[in-house]
Formats: sequence, C-alpha cells, structure tokens
Amino acid sequence: MFNRKNILGTKCLVEEEITTILDTADSFKEISTRPIKKVPTLRGKTIINLFFEPSTRTRTSFEIAGKRLSADVINISGSSSSTVKDENLIDTALNLEAMHPDIIVVRHGLSGVPEMISQHVKCPIINAGDGYHEHPTQALLDLHTIREAKGTLKGLNITIVGDIAHSRVVRSNIYAMKTMGMNVKLIGPSTMIPLGIEKMGVSVGYDLEGAINDADVIMMLRLQKERQSRYLLSSIREYSNLYCLTSKFLEKAKEDVLIFHPGPVNRGIEISLDVMESERSLILTQVTNGVAVRMALMYLLLGGKNDTSN
Amino acid sequence: MFNRKNILGTKCLVEEEITTILDTADSFKEISTRPIKKVPTLRGKTIINLFFEPSTRTRTSFEIAGKRLSADVINISGSSSSTVKDENLIDTALNLEAMHPDIIVVRHGLSGVPEMISQHVKCPIINAGDGYHEHPTQALLDLHTIREAKGTLKGLNITIVGDIAHSRVVRSNIYAMKTMGMNVKLIGPSTMIPLGIEKMGVSVGYDLEGAINDADVIMMLRLQKERQSRYLLSSIREYSNLYCLTSKFLEKAKEDVLIFHPGPVNRGIEISLDVMESERSLILTQVTNGVAVRMALMYLLLGGKNDTSN
Amino acid sequence: MFNRKNILGTKCLVEEEITTILDTADSFKEISTRPIKKVPTLRGKTIINLFFEPSTRTRTSFEIAGKRLSADVINISGSSSSTVKDENLIDTALNLEAMHPDIIVVRHGLSGVPEMISQHVKCPIINAGDGYHEHPTQALLDLHTIREAKGTLKGLNITIVGDIAHSRVVRSNIYAMKTMGMNVKLIGPSTMIPLGIEKMGVSVGYDLEGAINDADVIMMLRLQKERQSRYLLSSIREYSNLYCLTSKFLEKAKEDVLIFHPGPVNRGIEISLDVMESERSLILTQVTNGVAVRMALMYLLLGGKNDTSN
Repeated sequence: MFNRKNILGTKCLVEEEITTILDTADSFKEISTRPIKKVPTLRGKTIINLFFEPSTRTRTSFEIAGKRLSADVINISGSSSSTVKDENLIDTALNLEAMHPDIIVVRHGLSGVPEMISQHVKCPIINAGDGYHEHPTQALLDLHTIREAKGTLKGLNITIVGDIAHSRVVRSNIYAMKTMGMNVKLIGPSTMIPLGIEKMGVSVGYDLEGAINDADVIMMLRLQKERQSRYLLSSIREYSNLYCLTSKFLEKAKEDVLIFHPGPVNRGIEISLDVMESERSLILTQVTNGVAVRMALMYLLLGGKNDTSN
Repeated sequence: MFNRKNILGTKCLVEEEITTILDTADSFKEISTRPIKKVPTLRGKTIINLFFEPSTRTRTSFEIAGKRLSADVINISGSSSSTVKDENLIDTALNLEAMHPDIIVVRHGLSGVPEMISQHVKCPIINAGDGYHEHPTQALLDLHTIREAKGTLKGLNITIVGDIAHSRVVRSNIYAMKTMGMNVKLIGPSTMIPLGIEKMGVSVGYDLEGAINDADVIMMLRLQKERQSRYLLSSIREYSNLYCLTSKFLEKAKEDVLIFHPGPVNRGIEISLDVMESERSLILTQVTNGVAVRMALMYLLLGGKNDTSN
Repeated sequence: MFNRKNILGTKCLVEEEITTILDTADSFKEISTRPIKKVPTLRGKTIINLFFEPSTRTRTSFEIAGKRLSADVINISGSSSSTVKDENLIDTALNLEAMHPDIIVVRHGLSGVPEMISQHVKCPIINAGDGYHEHPTQALLDLHTIREAKGTLKGLNITIVGDIAHSRVVRSNIYAMKTMGMNVKLIGPSTMIPLGIEKMGVSVGYDLEGAINDADVIMMLRLQKERQSRYLLSSIREYSNLYCLTSKFLEKAKEDVLIFHPGPVNRGIEISLDVMESERSLILTQVTNGVAVRMALMYLLLGGKNDTSN
C-alpha cells in the first residue's frame, strides 16, 4: 500500500500513493474535531522537527499532528542549534538518528537538504520545505482541500498566480496535480516565470483576467516583497494592479471557483480583503487540512495499524 | 457559574467570578505537591502559548499548568514566528485557530492585542500580559496568595509602590482588588503616577514611610531600569533611597504585613535582600500559586468536569 | 544505593555510584529500541532543561530521555529567558523551584553555576556542562560505552588528545576514569595542557604517535577553532598535521582500539573521515548511550521503583 521511507517531494509520488495519503487524511481529520483530540496511534514514537528556517505555521502544524497521534515531538530550530558551531548537516542528522527518532521533519533554506540527509540516515525524513525545490506537505494539503470540496481531482482546472519561479509550493503542486490528472495554468509577470516550464505539462500566461474564466481553483502565491520589489518588479503597486485577485476579477470566474493561498497573505497585494473573506476562499481550510495530511503522512511512514479510537 | 469565553483582563470580572477562580485554584494547588503531579482533566486538549514578548516565568508557568492537566502545550515565540514575514497578527491567530486549539495564551508588547485577537477567533484567549494594559493572571495569583494568607480579601489595605504608570500588573490588580473590597493606596515618584488615577477608587501618595503603617500587604513593583532612569528619575540611587523596602521602613508596618513583588526583583533597588528573604515575603508563594491559578483558568474556560484524581 | 541529591560532577562520585549508574543505564538502553519507546516510570514528574548555552545534542538527549520516561519536559533557553532582564541566576532558579519541578538540568558557560544553583534549591540539579569545569553526563556516557564494548573498565588504557586545558569533558572523564581504575594519558600541544595536571594521576605527552600503541581507547577532543587558532596554535593545519587521528597513526595502535569523540567533529582536523567512519569509531554509540545514561540519572535521582514495562 504505502512503502516509502521518506516524503521528500511529490515528484516521485504515483497516483495510488497520493490517493492513499488523501484517504488517510480524510479519516484523521475528524480527530481534531473531537472533545478529546488525541489517539494513541503513535504513542512511544519520537518525532523531531528540525527547522533551519523559521516557520510558525508549518512547525506548529507538524507539532500538533504528532501530539494528536500521541507521539513525543522534539523541536530543534536552526538558531538554537549547534549548527552555529559549524557542525555539518550530516553529522547533525547522524547524531539525531543515534537517539532513535522515528521521523525527522526537515525544513531548510537550501534546496536538496532533506534528500541529502535521507541518504545518510535510516530514519524516515519528511521535507517541510527546502529552498526553491519542494514543499510536498503543502501540495498534499492543497490537493486534499480541493478533493474535499470538489469530490474529485481529475480534469479540474487550476490557475496558479504569482512568483512561479521562486515557489517550492508551485513545484510540488505541479508534480502532484499533473499526476492526479489536473490541468495547470501558470500566470505571473514574465520575470517570475521560468523559461521552459511548459515542459512540465503546464500552460503559461501573463494576464490574470484572461486566465480564470474556466478555472475550478485559483491559487494565489505569496509575494516576497523585499526581494521581488528590487529585482523582479517595477513596483508592488504595479504588481497588485495586475495580479491582485479582487472581486472585479472574480466576476469573470466560475460561480463555484475555489480560492487558495499558501499563506501568509499580503492583504491587498495578492488578494483583496473581501475575496479573502468570501465563501469561495478556502485559505483557512487549507490550514486545518494541513494537520490531517501531516498526521496521515506520519502514520503511513510508520506503517502502524489504523487505531483511531481514544 | 463561569461563562466567559476569554480572560482578557480583570476589569470586567465580577466578585462571584473571581471567587470561583480562586476557589478552583485552591483545589488545583494540591496537585503540584503530589508525587504524580498530573491529572487527566484536559487530556486531548491543545493549548498554544503565543508569546511575542519573552518571559521565562510566565510562559513556563502556563506550560506547566497545561501539562499538569494533561493538555498538549505548543510554544510559539515572537522571534521564531512568521511574524517576521510581516504576517499580521489576526492572520496568525486565524491560522492557529484553524488547527483547532482549545485555548490560545497571548502575550504582546502592545496593549489590546489579546482583545483584538479574541474578536476574530472563537477559541478562548487568555491575556498573559499586554503592553501597559492588563496582566490578569498575575493579579489573580496575587489575590489568591493574599486570600490564602489572610483568609479574606474584603477590607484589607494594600500599598503598591513604584512605577504605577507603566505597570500592567497594577492596573489588573486595582480592578480586581476594588471588586473584592480591598483598599488600594499607590505610592511612587510623581513622574510615575498617572494624573487622575484616583478616579479608579484608589488613594495616591509620594512617600513610602507614611503609607505603610496600616497596610496588610505591600506590593513593590519592578523598576524598568533602562527606560526609567533616563526619563523618569534623576537616578536609580535616589529612587532606591526613597522607595526601596528595607527593614528600617518595615518597622513602621504591621507585624503581619505581607510583602509582594511580581518579579524579577532588582535586589537592593526595590527591596532589600533581608526583607526579600524574610518570612513576610511571599514572592515565591506568588510563583507557586501562579501555576494553580492558570490551571484553574484553563479548566474553567474549557468548562470541564472537576476530575482531579490521577 | 544511590542517595545523591544532585549530579554536579564526577569528582565526588565513588566507584559503587558509577557502577550503579552504568548498570541502570544498561537496563534503560533497551527501551529506546522498542516499537513503543516509552515507560511510565516518571509520569507526572516535571523536568526543566535550563540551557544558558545552546546545544542541540545535549538538550535533545535530555529531552528525549525525560519523555521516554513519561516525564513532562520544559525547555528554557538563555536567549529566550528573562535573564535578559538582568534577573540573577539564583532568582531564576528559586522561581522555577517554586513551580515544583522534580529535576532542573542546567547548562551554563560559566564554571560553577549548577553547583551555585544547587545550594539554593531543594530540587535535584543535573549539570549538563558548565564552563571549563565539568560535564558529568558526557563522562558517564563515555564510561558506559567503553564498558559495554570492553566488558570492564579497570586497568584499561585511554589516551585523550587535544585541547585538554579548555575541556570540561576531559576533567569529568579523568575523575571518573581514575575512580574506575583506568590509566589516563593526555596528549596535546603544550599550550593546551595545564601545568601540573599530572597531580590528577594522569601522564602527559606532546606526541600522538608515541602515545597510542598501548591504548584501549583513544578519545579525540573538539578543537574550538576560532579561539584556539588565535591564541594557542600557530595554525589549524599544523595542529591537524600533528594531532589528527588518521589511519596512518592507527597502524601503531592495537587492533581493537576504540575511537571516541564528544562531537561535533571537525572532520579532517581532529579525525580523518575514514577513521571516523571505521568500525573502531564509537562516536554515534556514545550519542545513543547518552540517552540511556540520562534516563538512568533521572531515574536514580528521583529514587523511583524500577518499572520499565510499558
């Protein structure tokens, strides 16, 4: 059923694996709505959150996921870690492995670090975001949220808008969405769309208005304001004039289009406040499903039996 | 009995509510003295400590309180959080709420942040200190400690000494003490006492010696040395000459007067070492009772049944 | 059997105590290899990790040790603590004690801090490393690893190589190894060996090659590159030419010599990569045993009964 050692990205996941993950997340989602939000599934397991890049929401989501499965969760952050002593990453990983953790969740600013670590340790690794490479748990929670709302993934049209080039979220989503039979359109300023990305099986455009009329889902990306305003944009204001999803734009979209954003949102730059707060927006549902998807991945990697009673 | 969604301050708490909190804290205090200091009361509940301002003792007190009730406690600190990405506070709170926490404890350097957050989320909020506004759990642990030592609150005289103007502890204490029928006297340099504060039903003075002879409790406040020495005081030495509680001053006080300080103490500036270590000082009892009061608040906000067996 | 209140160093431990610690660690080691790595031994106990100096591996080892015994573990780090408010160390400790912890683990950059704290609080203190003074849990895990591999400690020869003068690991190891009947030889540049250290019952040399032929264990120390290159060494390259443990040097050693390093290793400076990865190297076994030794110390300090079932 599910025989992977690691979750390093969505590139290598096949349709059956993604379906298994989403089905498992479905069954775990209900736990977080119980009065007693805890099952003994991973009691006595040790999960290490090894975050070299700060991230409130992703770290918290993994920590809550682990604790609701009764695992012991250990947080290690880059700034508080011995990596300041110039210890290299592999040594850190080998040392942590020697303490017998069951899963190490890795987030790092450089692409490829989780994979490099996974090649040196026997312990399962989950990539919680690496450089511009992949962010598989974000993509899986996006798929889970779309499937939950639409009942299926196959044949759906998604338009992804913003800084495609510097987004690990987009890369992970493209791989997984293509695998699940979705049609992906990428929209953004030309400086933010990598040359040749059409080879991934996606279509590309530069104009938001013309790209949303057949979309079942519109996913807006976060603008990294500091970096992008200097190199990639003439101004933030120009960007938001062209690409901020407002209700005016939404008039061109389907009645039941879903609005996604990986968060945190720059309000009024990527999405207008009214659209963000409309019923079409599933931004907070994405967050809720993030916990369920991460619980599912921890469960599947550890191959436990499905005991979700208290 | 106790129907509040949040604990944002003591201003709005009525006498019956405060009595319920103190009675509940009484029954929880004993748990921390057992060989097995843990009850299953909040098993499967998730408590988030969202601290934008560092505070060892307050964060630790909430964390221990939650864990002794068997809750899962998640710490999020300002410096390690995505707020560095300019995500606004409300989005952070909405995102955390989407992960189904049961209580969010908020500490922030700006007045009003916990209340603002509480208006946007359904999850109960406890204010762990906000700007110069309120610090209700500190005031409640002070009341608990006074009542425990004196048997009652009504009619007791308290003299509070120091930087009244910049103290959230004082504000929360004045509200709660007036509600419980105590007589409050404020003492400090004139630059540190807000104009018109008598309207809160307190008396004001500038001279420590004349203000302690009828006090049942003397509460010394922490001097924020860096800030205050520059703007509000001619010198720290002058301040401590006038306001440091020494045994010489104490000769004028009642035999059984209680000495309080919210900590951390600047020894020799606010209190002399011998007074701090005397039997009259309940500074460490305040800390012990802080855990019990926070357990009580978590319990009451979640409306659970009173199961304090192991 | 084991009646100490604190573990401040190995200097005061007698042979029977060390044997009890190592025997207890033996029985705890197996827990970390179970599918459910958790026993209820310290359920309802509160362990505080008070780390004023960052250390991923030591803090994580204590945290995992505590959690596998079902204790609640509270992490407090120097940077996030109120010590930035100039609160002194003893007040911090007294305040933490007032919250009824069962053990406080202290790491500090200054020698003597754990002992000073232990004199003010009734709660047991474990020294997790203080200045250039002691690091007893590291020494005990070293002894455990040697005894596990060799079956005994008495009469074994160990050669310790590197910056002897600035190593708390060496000091703790010398005390404990002498107590257990081992023969200790210290090797390093003369600027890194304190005058008169022979009084501790050890021999001293400056030449690695001549000092390893009869060694049962070779322990390489970490070079603090920044500090030492400026004051104590003409160059890192010269140091590694003379003292880096390479397979060329190892040809002079016994076939079954064991290689130790407290980590993190500066590869190619203290140990060559091939030696580090050889079967003789027990560097990662040291880390694994660190968890077991820390579980044993927590258990012994709290005098609990030996229930290691699930």
